[in-house]
Amino acid sequence: MNKPAFVTAFVLLTLTPLAPADEGMWLLNQPPTATLKSRYGFEPSAAWLEHMQKSAVRIGASGSFVSPNGLILTNHHVGSDQLQKLSTPQRDLIKDGFYASTPADELKCPDLEIQVLWSIQDVTEQVLASTAGKTGEAAVAARRACMSDIEGRSKKDTGLDSEVVTLYHGARYHLYRYKRYDDLRLVFAPEMQTAFFGGDNDNFEYPRFCLDVCMFRAYENGKPLRVEHYLKWSKGAADGDLAIVFGHPGSTNRLYSMAHLEFWRDVEMPFSLNRLWRREVQLQTFMARNDENYRIGVEDFFGVQNGRKARTGTLAGLLDPKLMKSKADDEAALRKFVDADPKRKAEWGGAWDRLATAEAGWRTHFLSNELLNGRGLSGGSELFGLARSFVRLADELEKPNGERLREYRETELDSLRLSLISDAPIHDALEIDRLAGGLSLAAENLGGGDPLVTRILAGQSPHERAVGLVQGCTLKDASLRRQLFDGGSAAIRAHHDPMIDFFRAIDADARALRKRHEDEVESVERDCYAQIAAARFARDGESVYPDATGTLRMAFGPIRGYSEDGKAVPAFTTFAGLYQRNQERHGAPPFQLLPRWEAARSKLHLDTPYNFVCTADIIGGNSGSPIVNKAGELIGLIFDGNIQSLSAGIAYSDEQSRAVAVDSRAIIEALRVVYGASALADELEGKQDAK
Amino acid sequence: MNKPAFVTAFVLLTLTPLAPADEGMWLLNQPPTATLKSRYGFEPSAAWLEHMQKSAVRIGASGSFVSPNGLILTNHHVGSDQLQKLSTPQRDLIKDGFYASTPADELKCPDLEIQVLWSIQDVTEQVLASTAGKTGEAAVAARRACMSDIEGRSKKDTGLDSEVVTLYHGARYHLYRYKRYDDLRLVFAPEMQTAFFGGDNDNFEYPRFCLDVCMFRAYENGKPLRVEHYLKWSKGAADGDLAIVFGHPGSTNRLYSMAHLEFWRDVEMPFSLNRLWRREVQLQTFMARNDENYRIGVEDFFGVQNGRKARTGTLAGLLDPKLMKSKADDEAALRKFVDADPKRKAEWGGAWDRLATAEAGWRTHFLSNELLNGRGLSGGSELFGLARSFVRLADELEKPNGERLREYRETELDSLRLSLISDAPIHDALEIDRLAGGLSLAAENLGGGDPLVTRILAGQSPHERAVGLVQGCTLKDASLRRQLFDGGSAAIRAHHDPMIDFFRAIDADARALRKRHEDEVESVERDCYAQIAAARFARDGESVYPDATGTLRMAFGPIRGYSEDGKAVPAFTTFAGLYQRNQERHGAPPFQLLPRWEAARSKLHLDTPYNFVCTADIIGGNSGSPIVNKAGELIGLIFDGNIQSLSAGIAYSDEQSRAVAVDSRAIIEALRVVYGASALADELEGKQDAK
Repeated sequence: MNKPAFVTAFVLLTLTPLAPADEGMWLLNQPPTATLKSRYGFEPSAAWLEHMQKSAVRIGASGSFVSPNGLILTNHHVGSDQLQKLSTPQRDLIKDGFYASTPADELKCPDLEIQVLWSIQDVTEQVLASTAGKTGEAAVAARRACMSDIEGRSKKDTGLDSEVVTLYHGARYHLYRYKRYDDLRLVFAPEMQTAFFGGDNDNFEYPRFCLDVCMFRAYENGKPLRVEHYLKWSKGAADGDLAIVFGHPGSTNRLYSMAHLEFWRDVEMPFSLNRLWRREVQLQTFMARNDENYRIGVEDFFGVQNGRKARTGTLAGLLDPKLMKSKADDEAALRKFVDADPKRKAEWGGAWDRLATAEAGWRTHFLSNELLNGRGLSGGSELFGLARSFVRLADELEKPNGERLREYRETELDSLRLSLISDAPIHDALEIDRLAGGLSLAAENLGGGDPLVTRILAGQSPHERAVGLVQGCTLKDASLRRQLFDGGSAAIRAHHDPMIDFFRAIDADARALRKRHEDEVESVERDCYAQIAAARFARDGESVYPDATGTLRMAFGPIRGYSEDGKAVPAFTTFAGLYQRNQERHGAPPFQLLPRWEAARSKLHLDTPYNFVCTADIIGGNSGSPIVNKAGELIGLIFDGNIQSLSAGIAYSDEQSRAVAVDSRAIIEALRVVYGASALADELEGKQDAK
Repeated sequence: MNKPAFVTAFVLLTLTPLAPADEGMWLLNQPPTATLKSRYGFEPSAAWLEHMQKSAVRIGASGSFVSPNGLILTNHHVGSDQLQKLSTPQRDLIKDGFYASTPADELKCPDLEIQVLWSIQDVTEQVLASTAGKTGEAAVAARRACMSDIEGRSKKDTGLDSEVVTLYHGARYHLYRYKRYDDLRLVFAPEMQTAFFGGDNDNFEYPRFCLDVCMFRAYENGKPLRVEHYLKWSKGAADGDLAIVFGHPGSTNRLYSMAHLEFWRDVEMPFSLNRLWRREVQLQTFMARNDENYRIGVEDFFGVQNGRKARTGTLAGLLDPKLMKSKADDEAALRKFVDADPKRKAEWGGAWDRLATAEAGWRTHFLSNELLNGRGLSGGSELFGLARSFVRLADELEKPNGERLREYRETELDSLRLSLISDAPIHDALEIDRLAGGLSLAAENLGGGDPLVTRILAGQSPHERAVGLVQGCTLKDASLRRQLFDGGSAAIRAHHDPMIDFFRAIDADARALRKRHEDEVESVERDCYAQIAAARFARDGESVYPDATGTLRMAFGPIRGYSEDGKAVPAFTTFAGLYQRNQERHGAPPFQLLPRWEAARSKLHLDTPYNFVCTADIIGGNSGSPIVNKAGELIGLIFDGNIQSLSAGIAYSDEQSRAVAVDSRAIIEALRVVYGASALADELEGKQDAK
């Protein structure tokens, strides 16, 4: 690792010819077997793949079972939402971390649930048949009814959570069935400062020195869940070893048409970046006011910083003429292939222009839709979100399942209830800050004299209005929410408070905008991308992986450093590097070391690998993904991508773009030496029998 | 000061009936004598006013002579631009402050100049006559020629800097003549942490604990300037005392029509806030990278934070329905008065609708103009600014004086030369960050496929393009700039580098946008506001003060606390409060105390008044304004307004809105006890003879 000259030479010699071949977020039912065999001499068996599939856990983002007793490994920044909700002014788990040395000490999470993918079934024919000859509104309704029907029947037949997943933006539909668990308990989390050493400064950078780790345990019937499929701990991996990642990449846009990418570049990214820059500054001001504001705001803050940095990278990619040219060339080549044959041209040739028309139309109502249906107006207020959920629940419950908005269909109601009756704390001060910001955002973007703005402000300033809505909101009471949910439409309809009535007054506008987007944009996208994908399949065969959809995927690539500004960046860092980075930044925030890490310095094996990078193709949502070796043993835990990976949503590259992981050895060493958590380390290493 | 119950009672009893009467930023040639006499029993003589006028100094913002030897008192945040320019990696004056105990130690500023107002002459008739019967382009040209002609002749006749000031947005024109000095030397500055204790957190807040003080000395012919008019130091003031402020408020919008205010609310404020939020986050990222980036970026950073906080307050005012209703009522009443009389209606009745049409038109090209002529595209890059100045200088010098852009007229060339040949350091890293941000801003706002964007990016990403332009720019060399300036049009035309050629390629667009704004918006505004002001004068007499114009004004009001959320905020703070604030915020940034302040604690008179508030009507640009008592002695130094004052651009209130000042006694005590600067304190207190 300390041979930069060697590493550089290695990189120069091997990277270019191999570049594209590690690309892909592959479906578990269409694994890249040929590539794995030819490039890495690895032929995963069906049993190996099934074991991986059932060891992987969907937990907001990604995670995995790592012991037979339902122990789940994920990232600190995946678990931090629960850490925040479990914290009080007296017990700040974000700041101080947590370790339950016995099951009795584990803390039950207020509203966390996990899913384990149990089976996949292709239902493309059914879904496509449902919309045959239909367009726009009619197609949307028919497709929604068909998907809800498939899901409802599957749930009834199997008892499993059932979800029809749209692949290739509409070319394929697969039914995913999951086992779901909703009794999760917190086992271990380090301090935020340890998990996120270097803060925003080092976020999406490399080298890194982060213990971005959090562990929960799944329970069933009050006891730790016994699982057959879980990942065994490895002895660690070396430079050049193959790393195989199983996780839930959230969304990519690699198959987008140019018109769609340009919409993203010119409309979506600038709007969301403006919102995030604004919110980052507002949250800093809020948090600086006092210690309690800092505590309740910090989770939002890091989320905003993270989103801002990620989108900054995406926008840079969209403004990179070379990247956009390669996209344009690719599109032109495919269109040329299509146009070369009259039959192909008749069938698929119009897709790109129809997409362009749809995206042009979308530009005219995107802003209003973001404000009313996105995070715009609400500013992320939880009370606003609860009001929306209840108001709509009352309406949707009275419709047949197939006609409901997707998030209210029968198969979603259990999860929805869990989230709506959560007793996680809601803080008036933060809620007011969020909502006042959202109301002002609407006024800034639509204009202070806009009729909608005048209506929502009701003669008050954004701040005054937010104070009234938040202070008067009854939904802070979790037991009331339980009553409302269980009372159904009638109970909800009969209930009034300022926030609920506020949302009721704008819901017609919000629904109309959503419907317009679904009918005029989404539906056209599904249709056109199905045609474009068909053209691609016709030319290239089905060797194309679909864009990420927040569902389980497999990615792979060697552990490998890279070259930056002519300097070699080695693949691994060590604990020694952590202490060095602290020193070279004078220990100033966000590079300070906590006392327990200062104290542990002399006892730690400082050459323990801490973080490492590999070329596997990941994106946001992969956070918490396990990395395994060919033997299926856990060698690391994905927690980030480097700065060069931030345009990965649009295109993959392995020249400099890297996935960043915590090394499995660092987790054990830190648990044993820094946190005195030997029992937990033993459980991970399989040195302990079932409790 | 420690009797909140008493203070509250006092506030409640006295504030409301007196509220509007302290409003006003009065012209020195139209002082509010009647009000001062009736409310404060004070009748300033002509000699008193002349003494104040000639003691006041225009120094970017405001300042004053405070000794017969040309010593100038202003704010640290006014002087900090020069502190930054005088700093190097080895000598960080921002961080460490500065004190020259002898004239030989004083540091010559690279590009600072001051002006002292010497006389005022009403030239309204001439200017209005020049545009009689003309509109749009013709009116703009005629007015420009007339103003330049007046200025040119005045300069020739008197040797003084001469500037025609537009008052009431076009109803009156006054010729201001100034003495100018351009040899300024730094005498004293505390550390940024002392000047700006509490940072952005406490900026625009009260109570405050800031030594926001900086002192320069004017030189003439290599010797300290002997001045007849300077402010004597007072023994300090008490709660309730009248405070009289002389300074240069930058701009207010109190006379704006509703259509103009709505343009501000819906277009100007949202755009500039988006730009500032964005830049604040980008600068934080830049500064966090390493210590040197922090040093070179911090001045920009505080400027951005300050602008963001100020505009946030302004926007809140514009979104305050009560404030906007009072504005609308005021406008409606004036229109009713005008419409009630056929002659008035014929003469002035169309002004508001014409203004509304002009503002509506302005909405369509505001964005492009901001990008090309504002700070948008340049991102504040100094090299971009230099390139623009030189490219335009070459063109403008070849035109008759009366046809030139205002900043290139003969009377401006001395100041322009000083700024263009400054040897203040220019940092590539910061320049690239600024320009890359500006180029991306243009792409985000106009769209990546916009022809102008495509042209300016020239096939590169914003960052790549910025690197090329900055690294290739020859204007970093001050001696080259001197050659170019002195070589005139021919020399400039013959010179090429990437940045200069870059600006040349967009100047036609930029000029066209500027011309369109001048012809279609500014000219209409002047015309319409002249009519509206005439209507107001007809109804109310000439007791109306004009909106602020960055020229010398007089404001006044008592030293007085206020009530906030039911709690009394006393008028004065003390040094004791500084130590207390440090303690209650755990000494964490931005509340840390420097070692010299820790060490001085036991020696300081802790009950020394540190900061105080008064009701005088101020706005940005008043920074550094002296506050005097009726005897004309200096009692304080304006450095801020409180958060309630941030909508003062639109409307004055003295209910909670306050000007914030450093107490004269704190300056002396800090100089003597903390900084060992007794010689300077003696000079201020007149205890020392001329050096």
